[in-house]
Amino acid sequence: MKKQKLLINGERLSRTLEKFADFGRTENNGVTRLSLSDEDRLVRDYFCACCKELGMTIKVDDMGNIYATLAGLENKPPIVMGSHMDTVKRGGRFDGILGVAAGLEVVRTLVDNNIQPKIPVMIVNFTNEEGARFEPSMMSSGVLSGKFEKSVMLQKTDSEGITFESALNAIGYAGDQESRLKEATAFLELHIEQGPILERESLTIGVVECVLGMVCYEIEVTGESDHAGTTPMNMRKDAFFTANSLIMEARQKLGMLGDDLVFTMGRVNVFPNIHTVIPNKVVFSLEARHKDSKVIEKVEEVIKSLITTGSEDGCDIQAKKLWDRDTVWFDKSICNLLEQSTNYLGLPYKRMVSGAGHDAQFIASYIPTAMVFVPSINGKSHCEEELTTWEDCEKGVNVILETVLAIQSS
Amino acid sequence: MKKQKLLINGERLSRTLEKFADFGRTENNGVTRLSLSDEDRLVRDYFCACCKELGMTIKVDDMGNIYATLAGLENKPPIVMGSHMDTVKRGGRFDGILGVAAGLEVVRTLVDNNIQPKIPVMIVNFTNEEGARFEPSMMSSGVLSGKFEKSVMLQKTDSEGITFESALNAIGYAGDQESRLKEATAFLELHIEQGPILERESLTIGVVECVLGMVCYEIEVTGESDHAGTTPMNMRKDAFFTANSLIMEARQKLGMLGDDLVFTMGRVNVFPNIHTVIPNKVVFSLEARHKDSKVIEKVEEVIKSLITTGSEDGCDIQAKKLWDRDTVWFDKSICNLLEQSTNYLGLPYKRMVSGAGHDAQFIASYIPTAMVFVPSINGKSHCEEELTTWEDCEKGVNVILETVLAIQSS
Repeated sequence: MKKQKLLINGERLSRTLEKFADFGRTENNGVTRLSLSDEDRLVRDYFCACCKELGMTIKVDDMGNIYATLAGLENKPPIVMGSHMDTVKRGGRFDGILGVAAGLEVVRTLVDNNIQPKIPVMIVNFTNEEGARFEPSMMSSGVLSGKFEKSVMLQKTDSEGITFESALNAIGYAGDQESRLKEATAFLELHIEQGPILERESLTIGVVECVLGMVCYEIEVTGESDHAGTTPMNMRKDAFFTANSLIMEARQKLGMLGDDLVFTMGRVNVFPNIHTVIPNKVVFSLEARHKDSKVIEKVEEVIKSLITTGSEDGCDIQAKKLWDRDTVWFDKSICNLLEQSTNYLGLPYKRMVSGAGHDAQFIASYIPTAMVFVPSINGKSHCEEELTTWEDCEKGVNVILETVLAIQSS
Repeated sequence: MKKQKLLINGERLSRTLEKFADFGRTENNGVTRLSLSDEDRLVRDYFCACCKELGMTIKVDDMGNIYATLAGLENKPPIVMGSHMDTVKRGGRFDGILGVAAGLEVVRTLVDNNIQPKIPVMIVNFTNEEGARFEPSMMSSGVLSGKFEKSVMLQKTDSEGITFESALNAIGYAGDQESRLKEATAFLELHIEQGPILERESLTIGVVECVLGMVCYEIEVTGESDHAGTTPMNMRKDAFFTANSLIMEARQKLGMLGDDLVFTMGRVNVFPNIHTVIPNKVVFSLEARHKDSKVIEKVEEVIKSLITTGSEDGCDIQAKKLWDRDTVWFDKSICNLLEQSTNYLGLPYKRMVSGAGHDAQFIASYIPTAMVFVPSINGKSHCEEELTTWEDCEKGVNVILETVLAIQSS
């Protein structure tokens, strides 16, 4: 099958991506296509029509996941490509949809070249990856992998009180449980990096070996509110000053756990938040991600040490773990195949980790899985400025095509 | 006149304070009596009735300030006592009202003892000291002293869009400009300390020499929002981490400007305030108070130095001065008289400063003025727990009475 180098049609790929972006395109050339919205229904209809035109058969499962299959010569578990078509509010034109468009372009290339695969080739669209309308994110891949309870997920509501179940019924994409993805030869998810590494290192392809484990704490510092003008400094229990010292100490200690650790205090609330009143409470999040669970354990030790230190200021410190997750390692042989394809195509690449979560991390629990990243300009995603060049999109899809062909002939 | 030690009736004073607290008393024994509210109208009516019963004449000016005068034997500018009757939302039973009740108790004591004063004695209630319903605080003493423009103040609105002018008319306390306080022999304001110093030092009386000068800045740190999981630490422009470093440096530098300086970062807002997103903006207030304007100048130098340091992290730092005010020094001879009275009564006291603002600071610009503080339990004010013992209230009013008598006979 692999006589000469088969390549996708990059110009067609970019047209497809722009066509998809029409479903929910914003004024600033971003996309708002919340899960199970009207835009989501329309993009699904369009995607299904494209697949049918290619002779693929469509199935929809009870979470609204769509599976389009190009029949194979042999009755084997399919090679699956895909991602998600939903976006956050005022998101970009690449996050998620690139993985679905990649599948479509791979199948189009096969059909154009009259290649009927040995192993069936499937494109999947996972419902509600973003969790922007219905929490949690990666909802439907989570149900497929047994991570989330379907009955609980169906009752999740959006900000207007509409349940996931009724929204799914309303757009006409509630299928049957029997159609769920149960087994596959491989799952390949092409995605934008959502970080700055590939661009800064002038690389085109990231072969993703894992999704980072993480831990997220909420830390609450309680002091005492007093009048900012009448309370001498040495009689204060200023929760914000204590939090300031704690956070400085945390930054120093966490900074010593190695360059690969990322940590963020993204949510910080100060009470009562009046300029003439000494703060009596500060609540902030501290999340950290690393591939090595031992490093995450050290992060938790640092957080525990903060409690002791902070209390010396007379404030009360509470740290509550909101959640954690272990690092998900992708399938080694799929990673190797992706690397071989990248080398075959002569593309500059690196093996890397994913700091963000993806459907692939749940699917990896029961299907041999790996991911491919392409560069995000300035590392931006989940915003209208999100951008990946057409050339990089094309190269990423070629890696997927090459890998599908490699698995076919292996 | 000063043959034997004349003392007020402490039991009657506490009954008066409790009666006043009935106008707006909250479930937790605090008071909500916003300026120009129905509760304010009722407490004004009650106050005027009490004064009339004592044979005092009532005048109301165009800002709703109430002046009750006990005639003197001589036609001299009055000795004025008073404060304000409005409170913040869920405030206490002492802030402001104590100074008005003090005046009432002093006059009652004079009348009880058949003392007709040589110099007229006046009680004043200043409208809207708190600024809790209509900003700014100390509005009407500010208009009297020429600090604020009346026409601008009348158009100030509350959270429901009601103007100060219409609210003043609605409660029936819009008087004439002719009635304004123009000259006086002295103005004496008894107030709770609203800080912990007197209680911690086991003192009863604070002779207040000044209201601290202050400066308030708003500092804005602008970085870049990126994904918390995918952006390596050395590629971040984390506005919160930069703010954390800046604030630590500010605390260290300001802490070296002497024990008397108080400084507070009471209002802190972080954007976008999502735990998975690196903050791109932090806006915080930095206010500092000190009696010496040279120290305040040094505070401003520290703030300017922060801008340079912070920018080294790659963030943009802007500091905007929101406002400042100079230290207001009270009249030396009135302070001396207050001190003499305190000594005469054998009360433990200290000369001190006021970190909080009071009507007296504006009145001081054209009338010989000073203040007396009594202890606030745990330094609390502007809350339902606000407390000063009946004994301390009584002692404070005795200092006012003794000083009124001293001025009469001087």
